[in-house]
Amino acid sequence: MKIIKTKKGVQKEIARLRRQGRSIGFVPTMGYFHEGHLSLMRQSVRENDVTVVSLFVNPTQFGPKEDLARYPRDLGRDSRMAREVGVDILFVPSIEEMYPEFEGTRDKGQGTGKACAFGRVPCPMSRVTVKVGPIGDVLCGASRPGHFDGVATVVVKLLNIVTPDVMYLGEKDAQQVVVLKKVVKDMDLPVRIRTCPIFREPDGLAMSSRNVYLSPTEREEAVVLSRALREAASRIRSGERDGQRIISEIKKLILEGAHASIDYVSVVDAVGLSPVRRISGNVLIALAARFGKTRLIDNITVKVHGQ
Amino acid sequence: MKIIKTKKGVQKEIARLRRQGRSIGFVPTMGYFHEGHLSLMRQSVRENDVTVVSLFVNPTQFGPKEDLARYPRDLGRDSRMAREVGVDILFVPSIEEMYPEFEGTRDKGQGTGKACAFGRVPCPMSRVTVKVGPIGDVLCGASRPGHFDGVATVVVKLLNIVTPDVMYLGEKDAQQVVVLKKVVKDMDLPVRIRTCPIFREPDGLAMSSRNVYLSPTEREEAVVLSRALREAASRIRSGERDGQRIISEIKKLILEGAHASIDYVSVVDAVGLSPVRRISGNVLIALAARFGKTRLIDNITVKVHGQ
Repeated sequence: MKIIKTKKGVQKEIARLRRQGRSIGFVPTMGYFHEGHLSLMRQSVRENDVTVVSLFVNPTQFGPKEDLARYPRDLGRDSRMAREVGVDILFVPSIEEMYPEFEGTRDKGQGTGKACAFGRVPCPMSRVTVKVGPIGDVLCGASRPGHFDGVATVVVKLLNIVTPDVMYLGEKDAQQVVVLKKVVKDMDLPVRIRTCPIFREPDGLAMSSRNVYLSPTEREEAVVLSRALREAASRIRSGERDGQRIISEIKKLILEGAHASIDYVSVVDAVGLSPVRRISGNVLIALAARFGKTRLIDNITVKVHGQ
Repeated sequence: MKIIKTKKGVQKEIARLRRQGRSIGFVPTMGYFHEGHLSLMRQSVRENDVTVVSLFVNPTQFGPKEDLARYPRDLGRDSRMAREVGVDILFVPSIEEMYPEFEGTRDKGQGTGKACAFGRVPCPMSRVTVKVGPIGDVLCGASRPGHFDGVATVVVKLLNIVTPDVMYLGEKDAQQVVVLKKVVKDMDLPVRIRTCPIFREPDGLAMSSRNVYLSPTEREEAVVLSRALREAASRIRSGERDGQRIISEIKKLILEGAHASIDYVSVVDAVGLSPVRRISGNVLIALAARFGKTRLIDNITVKVHGQ
């Protein structure tokens, strides 16, 4: 496995592989890998000649009060794990490599690696950005303004650098999948998107790099999220069709089972993310809740046949 | 020359050419070709194995009160001209092909081809768009809000469809060149940009598809724009260094020589488009003026050595 730190280095390597007619799979990540990440890499390794993984904790998708500075990082461990599953290229750019204009902010004492003015979109550095529109304002976007513009911008940049045939995304970040599918479609990006299911701990907690933030008690209580989602799915399968009742039930289960504050619980159309009152078709039940300082998300998709 | 109307058709053709290892040059246009367009095509034909020209009057870069509906169109003439200079593929997509979500607005009586709500960015159809930031708010952007976001969005889409090695742009649209160079850099788009000088009528008027709007008197008076720019450049070469004096002089010459209203006259840094008070280095003198209903632009770049 090659570890490459520059855009030029990746572009050169990709050009060489393309001349050999190789197909390229791509997994964008922020690192601190768990089984969810590895499942995406394994799927790409199975389906493509070459697998490229990017590891970049993207500052423009964090809000000024979010956890950019303390986001967990361990390149040694990550690169061992990526190598073991058969990744060919690990692309690990610096912030300056991805955002050369960020360099200037160092002089003003803002480039400390902590969330800074630059972490907001639109940012004062007057970059060109991708704006995803209203689909980025609901669910997680409501409490993380600019987050999905930051995600879309960095992913488009990465796609332009890596030029993969297929990009692999985890269903854990359900809204991210919907948003990026729309970005690819609306911008005519020449890439296919494949998604992989959520990986869960034995007790049901969705795997996340942020789970390391949890205290032992919080970790124990966090299982309530997946339990509430499973319970909701089972109620829908038993005939419940009222979106609002499902939401109330989930909120009740969470607040009964944990010292958590709920960010949102939503029942939405799985394609357009618009709220559904009467459940039918493919619905996404998505939620976010805070355990202490740690914000966790989880979701489940339920398919309702007929009425 | 192949005339292709669908994205899929172009992508299929490009994939075939890429397998043969051909290099691809690309000229994005809104049609109604003049010598300026043809010079871009000829340059691409000289420098690449294959030349693709797109012809698309992009609604998202027109304001609601602008000339989208009456913008001159003549596909028969354009395709003959493109064929003659050696263009290989003429991509002529419909509005619906480029913006499938536009289809829906037809039902609401908005999709008449005239400037509609969809013509504004951000548009009510909630598309993903490229936002170019403050560089799109000055010069032409000041009187055409959203224009450069519309240009950037459609050009990124076209680049993603055509995936050329080189894109050719005319220096007539000086701000467009600066903006698109920034888009390519900030978004890491894998394409080089080459520019070609302004083509002028024998009397000096910059060639433009919009010149057909001019009445005989307006046409005659419009020569004042290029004359004022040449005069300003000559003053700078003779030692004038005051940006504001240059601007006043140009405005005076235009208003003396024509029944025109001035949109703007600016002396700016040729790279970042920021205004320059004391002229040095590479400066762009750019202007826009209205002759009746017709808005014309022109510009000249002057290089000042030393002080």
